[in-house]
Amino acid sequence: MDRAKRTRRSVAERRRQLLRIGLEVFSNTPYDAVSIDDIAEAAGISKGLLYHYWSGKREFYAAVVEEAVRDLIAVTEPDPDLLPEQRLRHSLRAYLDYVDQHRRGYLTVMHGGVGADPQIRAVVERMRQTVLDRIVDGLGIPAPPPTLVVGLRGWIGFVEGAVVSWLRGQHVTREELVEMSVRALGGVLTLLADHPVGEQEE
Amino acid sequence: MDRAKRTRRSVAERRRQLLRIGLEVFSNTPYDAVSIDDIAEAAGISKGLLYHYWSGKREFYAAVVEEAVRDLIAVTEPDPDLLPEQRLRHSLRAYLDYVDQHRRGYLTVMHGGVGADPQIRAVVERMRQTVLDRIVDGLGIPAPPPTLVVGLRGWIGFVEGAVVSWLRGQHVTREELVEMSVRALGGVLTLLADHPVGEQEE
Repeated sequence: MDRAKRTRRSVAERRRQLLRIGLEVFSNTPYDAVSIDDIAEAAGISKGLLYHYWSGKREFYAAVVEEAVRDLIAVTEPDPDLLPEQRLRHSLRAYLDYVDQHRRGYLTVMHGGVGADPQIRAVVERMRQTVLDRIVDGLGIPAPPPTLVVGLRGWIGFVEGAVVSWLRGQHVTREELVEMSVRALGGVLTLLADHPVGEQEE
Repeated sequence: MDRAKRTRRSVAERRRQLLRIGLEVFSNTPYDAVSIDDIAEAAGISKGLLYHYWSGKREFYAAVVEEAVRDLIAVTEPDPDLLPEQRLRHSLRAYLDYVDQHRRGYLTVMHGGVGADPQIRAVVERMRQTVLDRIVDGLGIPAPPPTLVVGLRGWIGFVEGAVVSWLRGQHVTREELVEMSVRALGGVLTLLADHPVGEQEE
C-alpha cells in the first residue's frame, strides 16, 4: 500500500473513531448539553481537529446520526436463512436492542429540536425507506401498490411510536414489543390479501 | 350583559377569528414563507393588533396549531350511538377529512422545522393522549396495562405515518386508509385478548 492510500485510510478510520465517541456521548447526554469541547475531551484530541473534519456541533451530530443509521441498517439486515415471520422478529429484536443502547439519541432524533434538522430528517427517511424496501422484497412484490406503501409507512410509524412510548418508561418487555409489531403488520397485510396486487379500485 | 362582559367576549371572538384566518394561511403556505404582514393583510387589520395578542409569528403559529387540535378533537368526538368499530371508522373519517383540508399544516406540524418547537410538540402530545384515552374508555378498561398503552401509542404512530405518506402523494382512498387503520388496531388488540388485563408477565 502506498503512503497516500495509507493516509486516506487512517483519515477515514480517525473520522469513524470520532463518530463512535460522538455516538456514545449523544446517547447519554442531551444534545443541547453537549459542547464541542466535551467531544474533544472524550476523544482526547484538540477542538481544532474536530473542526478540521466538521464545521460545528450540528454538522458533527448529523454525521453521528448517519453513522447510527448505518449501524441500524446493518444490524437489522434480514437473515435469508429464516422464514419470513422469524426474519421479521429477528430484525425487530436487533432494532430494539440497538435503540435500547442509545435511548437518548433515539428520542432526540425522533422528537428533539435538532431532530427537525433537514439533514437529520433525510437520514431518518433513508432508514424508513430501507425498511420498506426490505419488507417489499421479502414479500416478493416487484411494484408495491400504493395501499401497501401507505400501510408499511404506517407500520414504520407504529414501531417508532411504540418504541418512543417504551423508552419513556412504559414497562413492556422487548418480546411484547416484537409481538405487537408483528401483529400490527399482520393486520395491515390482511388488507393486501383481500385486494390482490394489480387490482385497481376507486 | 354589561359593557365589560361584552368587551371580553368580543376580544375572545376577535382572537378566534384571527386564528381561523391563520389556520387558512398556514394550511396553504409553508411556515417560513408566511410573514406577520401577510396575516395582518389577510385579516384586514394592522400588524400592531396582531402583536397586541401574540408576541410574534411563532407564538401566533402555536396558537393556530392549538386551535386546529381543538377542532380535530371536536370533529373526531366518538359518537356514543355507534357500535365500537363503526365509532372508530366514523372518527377516523372525520380525522382524515380535516387533515385533507389542512394538508400543509399537518405536514409542517408532523415534520417541519417549527414542528419541533416544544410548545407545538406539547399540543400534538395532548391530541395523542386524547385519542389514547378515548380508545381506552371505549374498551371500558379503567387502568390500561402498559402493553395496551404502548400498542395504542404505536397505533397512533401508524395513523400518522400512513397519513403523511398519503399527503405526500400516495394514491389511496380515504376508505382504504380507514380500513388499514382499523385492521392495524385489530392486530394490536388481539395481543391484549391473549394477555387479559391484570395479568403480569416479565
